[in-house]
Amino acid sequence: MNELELVERLRRISWPSKNLTLGIGDDCAIFRPQAGEELLFTTDQMIEGVHFTRAQSAASIGERALARSLSDIAAMGGDPKFCLVAMATSDTKWIEEFYRGLLRLAKRTGTALAGGDLARDEKFHCDVMVCGSVPRGKALRRDGARAGDSIFVSGRLGKPWDRKIEPRLALGRTLRGRATAAIDLSDGLALDLHRLCVASKVAAEIDRVPMMRGATLERALHGGEDYELLFTLRAGAKPPRGVTCIGRVVRGAPGQIHFEGRPLEPRGYDHFHE
Amino acid sequence: MNELELVERLRRISWPSKNLTLGIGDDCAIFRPQAGEELLFTTDQMIEGVHFTRAQSAASIGERALARSLSDIAAMGGDPKFCLVAMATSDTKWIEEFYRGLLRLAKRTGTALAGGDLARDEKFHCDVMVCGSVPRGKALRRDGARAGDSIFVSGRLGKPWDRKIEPRLALGRTLRGRATAAIDLSDGLALDLHRLCVASKVAAEIDRVPMMRGATLERALHGGEDYELLFTLRAGAKPPRGVTCIGRVVRGAPGQIHFEGRPLEPRGYDHFHE
Repeated sequence: MNELELVERLRRISWPSKNLTLGIGDDCAIFRPQAGEELLFTTDQMIEGVHFTRAQSAASIGERALARSLSDIAAMGGDPKFCLVAMATSDTKWIEEFYRGLLRLAKRTGTALAGGDLARDEKFHCDVMVCGSVPRGKALRRDGARAGDSIFVSGRLGKPWDRKIEPRLALGRTLRGRATAAIDLSDGLALDLHRLCVASKVAAEIDRVPMMRGATLERALHGGEDYELLFTLRAGAKPPRGVTCIGRVVRGAPGQIHFEGRPLEPRGYDHFHE
Repeated sequence: MNELELVERLRRISWPSKNLTLGIGDDCAIFRPQAGEELLFTTDQMIEGVHFTRAQSAASIGERALARSLSDIAAMGGDPKFCLVAMATSDTKWIEEFYRGLLRLAKRTGTALAGGDLARDEKFHCDVMVCGSVPRGKALRRDGARAGDSIFVSGRLGKPWDRKIEPRLALGRTLRGRATAAIDLSDGLALDLHRLCVASKVAAEIDRVPMMRGATLERALHGGEDYELLFTLRAGAKPPRGVTCIGRVVRGAPGQIHFEGRPLEPRGYDHFHE
C-alpha cells in the first residue's frame, strides 16, 4: 500500500460532517464556522517509548491519542468538531489498526477526521489536533477561580496508566456558564491545580482526594494521565452529580497549594525536568 | 529550563492576534471566527533523518517547518491566522533556535503562535498545524479544472532541497476567484499535477517546465519540495505576473499526463513506496 492508497482508504472510512465543507484529499480541510460559535484548538503527541510501548495494541494507542486531545476540549466545555492526525511509522499494518481505534472514539464523540500527514519513521509517533466549538464567551478557562470558590474533581484519581481514557465531554458541557475555572488532569492533581491557581492568581487548600481502589496517595496527587476534570464553583453552587469537593480557593501566593494543612509541592510529569 | 518555563518563555515571545481570544497557556487556544469567513486547516511533519539532518541549523528547520504548512494555505488562497506547534527533542537549546526561525516567518506572514505540545525524545520531530482564512466559498481547490483550461506554475522548478521556502501567499490570494484549481508542489510536478487532474477528473498535456539553473529535467518533473503553486485558469484568462504556462487541461483518463507527447508517470516522493 502506498501513501496515495492509504490516504484514499482513510478518505473512504471517514464520514461527512456538518460545517466541514471539505475533508481529506486537498491541500487543506475547509471548515465553515457557525454564527455565534467560538473555536477551541489543542494538540497532543504520542511517542513510542515516551508515552507508550509496542506491547500495547495499535487500536488502543489510536484511541488514547485522540482521547488526550478530547480531554482538553472537555476541560474548556467544548463540543469536538474535527481532528487532524499527523503520524509517522514504518509499519503500514499498524496504521490501519491505529485508525480503527481512533475512529471508533471519533465517531462516538462526533469528531470528524478532516486530514493529516503521513511519514515513514522507524519509531512510531503521532500528533492529534482537535478543533472544538463552544458558544461565544462560554469557554471554561483556567483563570476565573476566586477566593471562596469550592474545588471539585470528577471520578477517582491515581489511575493505572494503561486504563482507558474516557474524555469528560458531557461534564464539560454541563459546566459551561457554571464553573468559574476548569482544567483537565493530565500531569497530576498537584501540578494541574497549581497551574489553575497561577492562572487565576489564587491559592488553594485541599483536604481530600477521591482515589481509585489500589492507588497510592502519591500517585493520586502527583501521577499524570488521569484525564478527569478539576474545576471550581462559586461557594454554595450545586455541583453536577458524581463529582467530589476536594477543598476551596483561598487568598495567598498564586499557585500555592496546601493539602491537609501542609504545603503541597507542584510536582508532576515534566518532559524537560532534569 | 523545565516545561513550564519553556511554555512561559514562548508565551512571552508570541504576540496577540485579532480573533485569537486566548493563546498559549490554557488547555486550548480560543479563536473567534469572523462573519463570512471559512477556515483552512493543514498540518505537516518534519522528522530528523527523514526531512532534514542536524547539519542544518535549528532556525532554518523551524522556518521550513512552518513554511511547508503555509504553502498549503497559499495553495488554497488563504490568509494564515495562527499555528500550533507540536515538538519533541532532547535538546532544549535547539528548541529556542527552532522557534526563533519559525517565529520570524510567522511574524512576517501574520501567523500567530496559538499553542502546541512539547515532549522529550532522542530524535527531533515536529508537526506544525496552520489555520488560514478565506472569504466564504472562495477557497482554491484541486477539483475545479476543466478541459480547455491553461496550466501554470509559479517560479522555477528543481530546487535543491536546502533552498529556503518562500510560501506563495500573495500569489494564492491573487488567484482567489480566478484560478479554477490549484495545488502546491510538495511532491514533484508530475505527481502533484496527477493529483489535481484526478480530483478534477481530467487529463493534462504539458510541453515545457521552467527550471532552476543547474536543475535536471528529472528533478524538475519528479523532485519534491519546490513549494511553488500549480494552478489552472480558463483559456484566455490573463495570468498574474511571473508565472509560466506549461500546458493545458484536456479530456481523458483522470490523472493521465502527457509531457511532450509521451505519457508521464506520476512518480514523486512517497513515504510508503516499497
